[in-house]
Amino acid sequence: MANVLTLGEILLRLSTPTGTRLSTAKQLDLNYGGAEANTAISLAIFGHETTFITRLPDHALTIGMMRYLKGLGVNTNNIIKGGKKVGSYFLDVGVGQRASEVIYDRAGSAFSELTESMIDLDTAIDGYDLIHLTGITPALSQSLQGFTLKLMKKANEKNIPISFDFNFRQTLWSKEQARSFFTEAMPYLTHVSLSPWDMTHLLGYDDLSLSNRHEDTLNTCYKRLIADYPNIQTVYATKRLSPSASKNDLTGYFYTNGTLFSSETYTIDPIIDRVGGGDAFASGILHGILSQFEPDKTVTFATQASVLKHYIS
Amino acid sequence: MANVLTLGEILLRLSTPTGTRLSTAKQLDLNYGGAEANTAISLAIFGHETTFITRLPDHALTIGMMRYLKGLGVNTNNIIKGGKKVGSYFLDVGVGQRASEVIYDRAGSAFSELTESMIDLDTAIDGYDLIHLTGITPALSQSLQGFTLKLMKKANEKNIPISFDFNFRQTLWSKEQARSFFTEAMPYLTHVSLSPWDMTHLLGYDDLSLSNRHEDTLNTCYKRLIADYPNIQTVYATKRLSPSASKNDLTGYFYTNGTLFSSETYTIDPIIDRVGGGDAFASGILHGILSQFEPDKTVTFATQASVLKHYIS
Amino acid sequence: MANVLTLGEILLRLSTPTGTRLSTAKQLDLNYGGAEANTAISLAIFGHETTFITRLPDHALTIGMMRYLKGLGVNTNNIIKGGKKVGSYFLDVGVGQRASEVIYDRAGSAFSELTESMIDLDTAIDGYDLIHLTGITPALSQSLQGFTLKLMKKANEKNIPISFDFNFRQTLWSKEQARSFFTEAMPYLTHVSLSPWDMTHLLGYDDLSLSNRHEDTLNTCYKRLIADYPNIQTVYATKRLSPSASKNDLTGYFYTNGTLFSSETYTIDPIIDRVGGGDAFASGILHGILSQFEPDKTVTFATQASVLKHYIS
Amino acid sequence: MANVLTLGEILLRLSTPTGTRLSTAKQLDLNYGGAEANTAISLAIFGHETTFITRLPDHALTIGMMRYLKGLGVNTNNIIKGGKKVGSYFLDVGVGQRASEVIYDRAGSAFSELTESMIDLDTAIDGYDLIHLTGITPALSQSLQGFTLKLMKKANEKNIPISFDFNFRQTLWSKEQARSFFTEAMPYLTHVSLSPWDMTHLLGYDDLSLSNRHEDTLNTCYKRLIADYPNIQTVYATKRLSPSASKNDLTGYFYTNGTLFSSETYTIDPIIDRVGGGDAFASGILHGILSQFEPDKTVTFATQASVLKHYIS
Amino acid sequence: MANVLTLGEILLRLSTPTGTRLSTAKQLDLNYGGAEANTAISLAIFGHETTFITRLPDHALTIGMMRYLKGLGVNTNNIIKGGKKVGSYFLDVGVGQRASEVIYDRAGSAFSELTESMIDLDTAIDGYDLIHLTGITPALSQSLQGFTLKLMKKANEKNIPISFDFNFRQTLWSKEQARSFFTEAMPYLTHVSLSPWDMTHLLGYDDLSLSNRHEDTLNTCYKRLIADYPNIQTVYATKRLSPSASKNDLTGYFYTNGTLFSSETYTIDPIIDRVGGGDAFASGILHGILSQFEPDKTVTFATQASVLKHYIS
Amino acid sequence: MANVLTLGEILLRLSTPTGTRLSTAKQLDLNYGGAEANTAISLAIFGHETTFITRLPDHALTIGMMRYLKGLGVNTNNIIKGGKKVGSYFLDVGVGQRASEVIYDRAGSAFSELTESMIDLDTAIDGYDLIHLTGITPALSQSLQGFTLKLMKKANEKNIPISFDFNFRQTLWSKEQARSFFTEAMPYLTHVSLSPWDMTHLLGYDDLSLSNRHEDTLNTCYKRLIADYPNIQTVYATKRLSPSASKNDLTGYFYTNGTLFSSETYTIDPIIDRVGGGDAFASGILHGILSQFEPDKTVTFATQASVLKHYIS
Ligand SMILES: Nc1ncnc2c1ncn2[C@@H]1O[C@H](COP(=O)(O)OP(=O)(O)O)[C@@H](O)[C@H]1O
Ligand SMILES: Nc1ncnc2c1ncn2[C@@H]1O[C@H](COP(=O)(O)OP(=O)(O)O)[C@@H](O)[C@H]1O
Ligand SMILES: Nc1ncnc2c1ncn2[C@@H]1O[C@H](COP(=O)(O)OP(=O)(O)O)[C@@H](O)[C@H]1O
Ligand SMILES: Nc1ncnc2c1ncn2[C@@H]1O[C@H](COP(=O)(O)OP(=O)(O)O)[C@@H](O)[C@H]1O
Ligand SMILES: Nc1ncnc2c1ncn2[C@@H]1O[C@H](COP(=O)(O)OP(=O)(O)O)[C@@H](O)[C@H]1O
Ligand SMILES: Nc1ncnc2c1ncn2[C@@H]1O[C@H](COP(=O)(O)OP(=O)(O)O)[C@@H](O)[C@H]1O
Repeated sequence: MANVLTLGEILLRLSTPTGTRLSTAKQLDLNYGGAEANTAISLAIFGHETTFITRLPDHALTIGMMRYLKGLGVNTNNIIKGGKKVGSYFLDVGVGQRASEVIYDRAGSAFSELTESMIDLDTAIDGYDLIHLTGITPALSQSLQGFTLKLMKKANEKNIPISFDFNFRQTLWSKEQARSFFTEAMPYLTHVSLSPWDMTHLLGYDDLSLSNRHEDTLNTCYKRLIADYPNIQTVYATKRLSPSASKNDLTGYFYTNGTLFSSETYTIDPIIDRVGGGDAFASGILHGILSQFEPDKTVTFATQASVLKHYIS
Repeated sequence: MANVLTLGEILLRLSTPTGTRLSTAKQLDLNYGGAEANTAISLAIFGHETTFITRLPDHALTIGMMRYLKGLGVNTNNIIKGGKKVGSYFLDVGVGQRASEVIYDRAGSAFSELTESMIDLDTAIDGYDLIHLTGITPALSQSLQGFTLKLMKKANEKNIPISFDFNFRQTLWSKEQARSFFTEAMPYLTHVSLSPWDMTHLLGYDDLSLSNRHEDTLNTCYKRLIADYPNIQTVYATKRLSPSASKNDLTGYFYTNGTLFSSETYTIDPIIDRVGGGDAFASGILHGILSQFEPDKTVTFATQASVLKHYIS
Repeated sequence: MANVLTLGEILLRLSTPTGTRLSTAKQLDLNYGGAEANTAISLAIFGHETTFITRLPDHALTIGMMRYLKGLGVNTNNIIKGGKKVGSYFLDVGVGQRASEVIYDRAGSAFSELTESMIDLDTAIDGYDLIHLTGITPALSQSLQGFTLKLMKKANEKNIPISFDFNFRQTLWSKEQARSFFTEAMPYLTHVSLSPWDMTHLLGYDDLSLSNRHEDTLNTCYKRLIADYPNIQTVYATKRLSPSASKNDLTGYFYTNGTLFSSETYTIDPIIDRVGGGDAFASGILHGILSQFEPDKTVTFATQASVLKHYIS
Repeated sequence: MANVLTLGEILLRLSTPTGTRLSTAKQLDLNYGGAEANTAISLAIFGHETTFITRLPDHALTIGMMRYLKGLGVNTNNIIKGGKKVGSYFLDVGVGQRASEVIYDRAGSAFSELTESMIDLDTAIDGYDLIHLTGITPALSQSLQGFTLKLMKKANEKNIPISFDFNFRQTLWSKEQARSFFTEAMPYLTHVSLSPWDMTHLLGYDDLSLSNRHEDTLNTCYKRLIADYPNIQTVYATKRLSPSASKNDLTGYFYTNGTLFSSETYTIDPIIDRVGGGDAFASGILHGILSQFEPDKTVTFATQASVLKHYIS
Repeated sequence: MANVLTLGEILLRLSTPTGTRLSTAKQLDLNYGGAEANTAISLAIFGHETTFITRLPDHALTIGMMRYLKGLGVNTNNIIKGGKKVGSYFLDVGVGQRASEVIYDRAGSAFSELTESMIDLDTAIDGYDLIHLTGITPALSQSLQGFTLKLMKKANEKNIPISFDFNFRQTLWSKEQARSFFTEAMPYLTHVSLSPWDMTHLLGYDDLSLSNRHEDTLNTCYKRLIADYPNIQTVYATKRLSPSASKNDLTGYFYTNGTLFSSETYTIDPIIDRVGGGDAFASGILHGILSQFEPDKTVTFATQASVLKHYIS
Repeated sequence: MANVLTLGEILLRLSTPTGTRLSTAKQLDLNYGGAEANTAISLAIFGHETTFITRLPDHALTIGMMRYLKGLGVNTNNIIKGGKKVGSYFLDVGVGQRASEVIYDRAGSAFSELTESMIDLDTAIDGYDLIHLTGITPALSQSLQGFTLKLMKKANEKNIPISFDFNFRQTLWSKEQARSFFTEAMPYLTHVSLSPWDMTHLLGYDDLSLSNRHEDTLNTCYKRLIADYPNIQTVYATKRLSPSASKNDLTGYFYTNGTLFSSETYTIDPIIDRVGGGDAFASGILHGILSQFEPDKTVTFATQASVLKHYIS
């Protein structure tokens, strides 16, 4: 099993019980979320030594978050204490044609204020087999953009591969800001979660030729991507058809060594909780890579992990 | 019945069910709080035409707050839409010797960004019989301090009496900042909720002589206060003995025309929800004033209103 | 163990969870109540063969009531099916100085429409050792008054003793109506639950001399009552001090063979559910009578049964 | 935006949590229902000035209902206080092939006792752009039939259009009683919700020719209806296929100016709460009419409003 | 209606609320299960006089079980008191592709220790029209195997037909142990629930020819079974397709007098609670037999009873 | 901070929500208990490196227990996997005069089957500063008695002090069995939780002289104990007055170096959860010892820790 480091923001998640709305709810369900924390947890459950780094204030909500992470086997020893606020989001859980809605409350969170002076990057990343990051972290603040790039460069120096989930969040930054960051980051990455849409809008590939067959599109796009960025070893993504908030069709794709592998298409019905489904897929892919599974076993494992995630909250 | 205006921040309140803790809770109870909103609601229930002004973002949490206020009869037509965040607090409800704890998350709330340019004060306060404010509003931001003073002055010009609850919150500003504001505000107020402690620490009365009999202390202090600020017509306060988070003794005091009136002492057991008890007392006092009750009826009504509030959440 | 018949109305009880109010509750707790049903259940639990007769419509709420009674060992074979409505009440559960409030919805219930033609009284009451009735049944409708008296007379013919709990409900009938019925009923009764207040207001004893010592009053009153109605063998009652909805002091009294027996005074704190406390006391007294306990054992058993009832809902 | 008046009964709704049954439930969910109240609320949410008139007793359940209506923006100033009982219904929520069941408890409700003497119709309906009524109100009592007709006539005198939802409830009155009332009412109506079934059974059209294509049937029927009652401007209805209590197909129809407009067919899955779906459709149609939407936009808006309603409780 | 005896273990069932998992649940739903108890209850609801025999310890969990059985009309007078433990199981309720999981905790239960000396079989089974048993009872302990066979023989002597549901549970005993018992039991049975799989693995029919059409397979298999065991009058079984824990297709089969009857195929969606579905089918079949329904009415009734069971928990 | 090892059984705890009873509850609260696990958790929270050893089966309930322990900072790496059953108990939570009741279900648990061959004691206890055990472990099975003594002897060889909480459970073994074990164990212990009752009944001190002043009794008894067992360094105990299940008075005692130290007496009201109060006290004492607090600080810390524990569940 491998040693994995993830860094990002763990979020307080306050969601409505099914069939109620945020505007009339008298109770909210309290959980924890955040793409990097989700990935840390999944990898720990899959058996890897996983460390999660973030910054959290010194109060009772943090105690709950730490307990949650530790209980699931994630190493929290390097979490930085400081700041005043935990990032949070309110989730109005959708049903059928009524879509879910999210209200984020993250501005000024302890993590968004993280600066290089708070952490000794050299020792922090030493000894890991993989570092997992997402496009959410640089979106949270100017200082986190610099910090993320520095971290990536340090990892490259130490020959630690980086996996990176683009996870573009338009409420956090603009496409232009994102493109500038992502373009600068690409040369440092090894494994990326990325769709043709991301290539067009976030990396500037304006002229991608899309085919009717989704697999053809992916093959063409990813081939070109790797031609441009030969440091990229694998690319992965899911296709999600969402006719309803309660029922989705999900297919997983995994591109490696010039070949695209795809899973079966799974119908998920009824969806209990959609959030985190993408993180579970990414975790499954990374588990396959770290465990040196065959590519088709990897993509099947990852897609099934994502499917199962939708049935628990 | 009277026309009353209150202005302040309505807060989202997320509290633990009794006997659970914030760090382990899986569900939180959602309610709404905030001293001025509480007072607006109580006065509306007592039969007055009450208007509440605040600033709120345009999303589902605001819908819930509006529905709550309107359902209880508060006029919300002048609430300003804008900003991105509702102020909130997490309440870890105490029991017995385990005290309650509060984590506020208000920095950057829509209301704290309120500036004079967003509201036409002249028309906003026109036609009211009373304006109720608290010391929480100026504590929220620099701009709200200026705004509050301007509002007070405008009210004085129009001969509208102001009631003001000191409600000092040390996590929001320092005693020094508060003292500077409160001292400037005193000449504009008519009815104030204020304890000898407030006089010492927030108004600079360093040499108050305290007696063993609490009523003697209050008589001496309030006499002196009114000698200094003859604009003050009434002063009110409660004395709360809190041997336990589940059991308190509460007495109400009301000083007017040079005489102190006090209620019986009520034992409250078991306390269901302590927050808002002071607001209920203030509302009862204002109701007595607006309804021209006899002073002893006023203080009894207000204290009983406060006692009953402790039994509902 | 004895064969006992009780007849009356079983009620649907919809109550607020502690600390919420009827006007804001989003959920209500569903239970079943009614003085005679409560007594039937207690006697069944104490080991007696108990039959409960009422009239209920043919729908799902009745199924729940039947299941409840049968599950606790009450014979429901003679319950009459018919009518359209189950009687119900909404209970706004009080705490501390906030008193409980009840909203009854019983007019037109299936039981209130019960008439003699629906039941063959002769066979219905045959073979029982005791029949238990309360003053609620005649209060429900004109026809139930006639029915109740007829039942009492039939029982007297068959030498079956009747126990009767006055349970005056002023929202159901006036004191005058009640007095007329109760006066007519007295000669047929054997065991009665009755206070000096009841004697004055419901039996016309206008000149009772009350003592400072409650026990002296009871002795005097009950002596006189039995002088007037020598058919009465035992009289019982409780004294309840209710400084708060959450805390009561309860003492039980039992008068038999010219002597008054009383229990200790029990402090009940915190009260979980007060309703049915009187019924549990009555059931305990009847159990003592049917089991030929010594009088002081009877009154202690009954009062403890009542105390324990307050701790469960 | 328009001024709308609706008049009818608001009901207390007590429903089982999904997967439980009325006969075993220990908790019920408390909501408020009633076709006219539902419509008032929807129209208020869509932005119209909406007034709801009913009659309610003076107790805590009424407070909850008023708070609910006011919170959602409905004007309740003209609600009449009186009587003793709120109408209610128990809802055993179905799943899959297990159908929902309803037990009504409305006989003797405060509203069913409403008589003309309690309200000054002339001033009550003055100044509205539309009055919305349903066939449930006349079904509740003899006096409400007379009252409803009088109201309709008064509205005609004042040139206020009436919209009317047939909503035949066979547990409230017979087809014969309904037909007599509906036939008398038809000449006063402007917008009606009415199916071919209603025409046959409630208006005496015994010889309607039904086609295999539902749209053809509707065209023929509605054409004939308007030939007979030229006062009718629009007719609307939904077609609902209910293979299961959890999954329905819904299509909306809207007939105006001699043309039938229909929406897409929406599959609703999983249904959270079916009750009120028809009211949401009616409200959507009225909103389209009042806002002078194009007919196809109207029917689409109304059907989508109805679909979304099924996902919230 | 008939007199039916069932004997077996009633189990405490602790299950997770939908969407939660056993490893994170903070609350579990408490119900009661067990194949024979389920059948006793269904038959009582269908109107038969039903007696359930088991052995239970003398504590509060037993009180709950007794209350449950009695409330649903099952005679519990012959239940044996003794032992220390009630059998229980934890149910992690599945959704979609996440399957349900069960953890049994039955070793050493009061019932598993039942021995012949605790019950007078002769009088215990006297006077019944049918005795229902399952293959779970002999699987629980060595002594229960002997006891079950003795009971079967006694029933044969008294000409009381036995119905028997194979219900093989591999966590309780091996196929070899089961086969030895089942083979010995077959000559004593009248009605059996049994699939071709059971015939192969539990009765030693190694050479069954399976057809593509399930009905053909059943016809062939059951014909042969009855040729070997002419004491068998009816055989019944369901076919369940389980693409998902939330959605199943169910068909019922009933073989009698040399003919196979089958029900429609019902799609069950969404499944609220799958456990007990087979018991409801068996109960429906037995009800049809005892009521002398036509075979196709019997199999339809049984399958619908099973379908409806899936919608309640 | 110190390195502490505790060994014992962690239990699944299923308790009734306040005011409900086990026989009627539809939901149970799921928590984890067990004296040694409670102590491990408290010591981890107080900042010590704490390891908990037990034996648990390989299923979902164990996952929950591991997550719980790890989340709170307890090292679970040495927990032994095996067996089939987790020990559990059902708790009928008392209120007022209605006492709590417990039903244990532990026979045959994975831990009770622990034998020496499953663990290498030498390496297991190496390097700890303290080992904490209780009298519950030897009570669970014959093999655990031998195991516990062996562990004690090994600890003595390695000079690791042992703390031992007598915790006599009469439902697990007889006084005679306990006395034989405890007498053999005494020479190996360093810190013991022990009352005069324990000395009389479990250590054979039949002639203890009890004083009216509880502190005098303790002084005399503990002095004598240490005279007999000079290896004992400290003795501690609480005095608990329980007039009601909802209200207790608690005093802590700590005897060391020939002097008895006692805390204030705390009134605990209302008790949320009494179970584990003694463990919290023991943990507080051990924390004081390990941190070299002054004795009076130690006993105050421990008693307050116990008091606070009563307010959380
Ligand atoms: N500021 C943030 N920091 C970390 N995670 C975030 C942030 N904002 C949103 N997220 C997370 O993004 C994730 C949603 O992505 P995911 O469920 O993987 O969706 P998809 O399948 O569409 O990729 C969630 O885990 C959510 O909590
Ligand atoms: N920023 C804020 N704006 C408005 N109200 C606030 C703010 N912060 C705290 N409060 C409110 O202060 C009130 C607490 O005071 P109160 O219950 O009256 O206590 P006391 O009896 O001690 O005076 C609550 O209503 C709480 O919601
Ligand atoms: N119509 C009715 N029929 C039967 N019982 C009723 C009726 N109305 C009220 N009750 C019952 O009266 C009982 C209340 O009396 P109880 O609790 O014995 O009080 P107390 O201690 O004051 O005598 C409850 O069981 C309540 O359900
Ligand atoms: N007495 C009544 N007064 C008012 N509304 C009633 C009454 N009885 C039933 N209703 C209402 O009828 C409505 C049900 O109709 P709806 O959901 O529109 O169904 P559909 O789609 O079948 O037309 C609900 O709002 C219900 O509350
Ligand atoms: N020891 C046991 N004694 C009695 N019933 C048991 C035992 N173990 C499991 N069961 C029961 O077996 C039944 C499950 O079978 P069922 O739902 O009929 O499924 P299927 O449709 O697969 O036949 C449940 O009632 C469960 O409680
Ligand atoms: N078999 C067992 N193994 C471990 N702990 C047990 C066992 N049986 C009971 N306990 C525990 O004993 C403890 C109860 O003692 P405690 O609350 O400290 O009470 P007291 O204050 O009376 O000493 C609880 O933690 C309970 O879980």
